[in-house]
Amino acid sequence: MNTVLAIDIGGTFTKIGIVDEAGEILISKVFSTKSREPFASFLKELVPEIKELSKKLGNKSNILAIGVGAPNANSLTGNIENPPNLKWGKVIPLAMSLENAFNLPVFIANDANAAALGELKYGMAKGMKNFVVLTLGTGLGSGIIINEDLLLGEHAQAGEIGHVNVDPNGRQCNCGLRGCLETYASVTGIKRTVFELIAEMNEDSPLRSISFEELTGELIAKAALKGDKLALRAFEITAEILGSKMADTVAHLDPEAFILAGGLSKAGDILLKPVIASLETNLFIAYKGKVKVYLSDAPRNAAILGPAALAWKQLATSCLKI
Amino acid sequence: MNTVLAIDIGGTFTKIGIVDEAGEILISKVFSTKSREPFASFLKELVPEIKELSKKLGNKSNILAIGVGAPNANSLTGNIENPPNLKWGKVIPLAMSLENAFNLPVFIANDANAAALGELKYGMAKGMKNFVVLTLGTGLGSGIIINEDLLLGEHAQAGEIGHVNVDPNGRQCNCGLRGCLETYASVTGIKRTVFELIAEMNEDSPLRSISFEELTGELIAKAALKGDKLALRAFEITAEILGSKMADTVAHLDPEAFILAGGLSKAGDILLKPVIASLETNLFIAYKGKVKVYLSDAPRNAAILGPAALAWKQLATSCLKI
Repeated sequence: MNTVLAIDIGGTFTKIGIVDEAGEILISKVFSTKSREPFASFLKELVPEIKELSKKLGNKSNILAIGVGAPNANSLTGNIENPPNLKWGKVIPLAMSLENAFNLPVFIANDANAAALGELKYGMAKGMKNFVVLTLGTGLGSGIIINEDLLLGEHAQAGEIGHVNVDPNGRQCNCGLRGCLETYASVTGIKRTVFELIAEMNEDSPLRSISFEELTGELIAKAALKGDKLALRAFEITAEILGSKMADTVAHLDPEAFILAGGLSKAGDILLKPVIASLETNLFIAYKGKVKVYLSDAPRNAAILGPAALAWKQLATSCLKI
Repeated sequence: MNTVLAIDIGGTFTKIGIVDEAGEILISKVFSTKSREPFASFLKELVPEIKELSKKLGNKSNILAIGVGAPNANSLTGNIENPPNLKWGKVIPLAMSLENAFNLPVFIANDANAAALGELKYGMAKGMKNFVVLTLGTGLGSGIIINEDLLLGEHAQAGEIGHVNVDPNGRQCNCGLRGCLETYASVTGIKRTVFELIAEMNEDSPLRSISFEELTGELIAKAALKGDKLALRAFEITAEILGSKMADTVAHLDPEAFILAGGLSKAGDILLKPVIASLETNLFIAYKGKVKVYLSDAPRNAAILGPAALAWKQLATSCLKI
C-alpha cells in the first residue's frame, strides 16, 4: 500500500508515523525531542527510529514521501529557522538532511500550517475552500487555507496571527513586541489572565492554591466547568479578545470558517460560545452571520495527520506537473 | 486594435474609457454619477455614452470585454450590494444589465480590488506576486493580491482592511462599529484627528479657520509641508495607527509590499516616512526589514486602469480555459 512518513516535531515530543491516503495511521511512535540536542544527534536517533518503524510494516507499506511539521519550518527553504524552543541553532537544514538519509521527497511546513492541511484532508474542514486554523497551545499558531491551498506569502511566513496586536501597551511577548494576541489567547495567555484576576478579584477559587508553573489549561477549564467565577471570567476575557481579533482576520480573508485546535480548544463550549458571540459583535456588516467557528475534533495523538496531509498534497501537486 | 471598455463608478463621478492591453487610454469621459438616480436612469444614460465613445474610435477599437470597478461590487454575483453612497437600492444587477446592453463579457469588482489589479498590470506592483493596495480616500479600501491573483475569499468580500479594529471604544464608523481603521487612516480620518488636535492643542494653525466640511486632505498636507505643528502631528498620529495595523496585515499575509493610493497618499513623504517607521516598529521579528511600502504613482484620472486590468485579466483566464 502507498503511504507517507509523517513527522511532527514539537518542543517536547517528536511523533513519527506511517499514514495511508485515507488518514489511517498504520504505525506510530512518540519520543522525546529535548533529550536529543543538538540537531545532529537528534537526526542520528530519528533516522533509525524511522527505519525500524518502516521495517515493522515490511512490504505492507510503500513510502512515497516524507512530510514534516515543525515550529518555524519554512516550506520554501526546507529549513527550520530560529526555532524558539529547540536549541538546534539558527538554520537547520531539515528537508535536505532527511532527503539525504532516505532518498525520498521531503516536504516541510510550520506546525500550524501542517495542522491546517490536516483539517482540510482529514478533519473538520473536509470540503471547505477558505478557512483558518488557530492552534491555541503554549502560543497561538495559525494556518490559512485559500482556495484549498496553504497561504504561504512572499517569504513562506504567512499566518502569524498569534502576533497581531491586541494592545500596544499590553503584555510582554516572547517575540519582543508587546500585546501580541498569543499573550492573551493561548494556554499561557489564559494562565496570565487567571493571575491578573487573582490579583484583582476577591472571590474564592481553587486556582488560588496553584502556582503559575503548576497551572494548566485543563485545571482552568475544570474549575470553570464547576462554576468557579474566576475561571469563568478568565474564559470570557480570553474569548472576547480572541473573537474580536478573529473579526479582523475575517476583514482580511473572508473565510468560511475558523477551526480552533490545540490544548485550550479542549475546553469546549465554555470557550467556543463566547468566542462566537464576540466574533459576531465585532464583524463588519458584510460578514455578519456568515462565518462559522468549530472546535477541531482531532485527537491529540493525531498531530502527525497534518504532516501526512502535507506530503499527500505535495505528491498530488507534483503528479499534476508531470 | 483589441481593447476593453473600462468603467469606474464612484459616489460622485463615473469614468469610462477604452483601453488597450498596454494600458493606453485611447479615449475617455467623466460624468456625474449623482445626477443619475435611480440605477435604471443611470444605465439609460451610461449606455449611449459608451456607444458614443466607441463610435468615435470606429474600427480602430475592437472591444473584447467590459471591466467595472464600483463600491461594494461583488465579483461572484455580478451585483453591486448595499452601496453606501449610491441611492440605487440594495442589490443592483450591474453585470447582467451591461451584458444585455452590449452582448460582451462583463467583469466587475470592488473599486479597491480593481485598483489592486491596476497596480499589478500597469502600476507600482508590476512584477510582484504578493502585495496589498490601500486606497486612502473618503474611506479606506483595500485589495489583496496573492500569487498574482485577487484574493476574493468565500463570499468575494475579502479585503475590508478599513474595518479592522483600532480601538473598541474608538470613533464611530459608518458601518455601525466603533474604532474601525478607516475612521483614523483616510482623508476623513485625518480630518477627525485634526479636529481632535484643535480641541487639545493651543498652537496657532491655519486649520483653525476652516470648518470640518471645508477641510480637505490637501489643505492638511499643505499646512504640514509649511511646518504647521498641528497638521504635522495629525500626519504622525495617522501614520502611527496605519503602520501598526499594516503590521497586523503582514502577520496574516506576509506580502512583499504595500502600495498606498487615494487622496491621502498624494501627501507624499510626510505620510510615507512615519508609516514605514511605525510598520517596522510593530512588525513581528520574522518580517522586519522585509516589507516595502510605496506610494501609487497612478494619476487620479487613471481610475479606469483598474477596471481595464480586471477585464484583461479575466479575458486571459477565459482563454486558458478554452
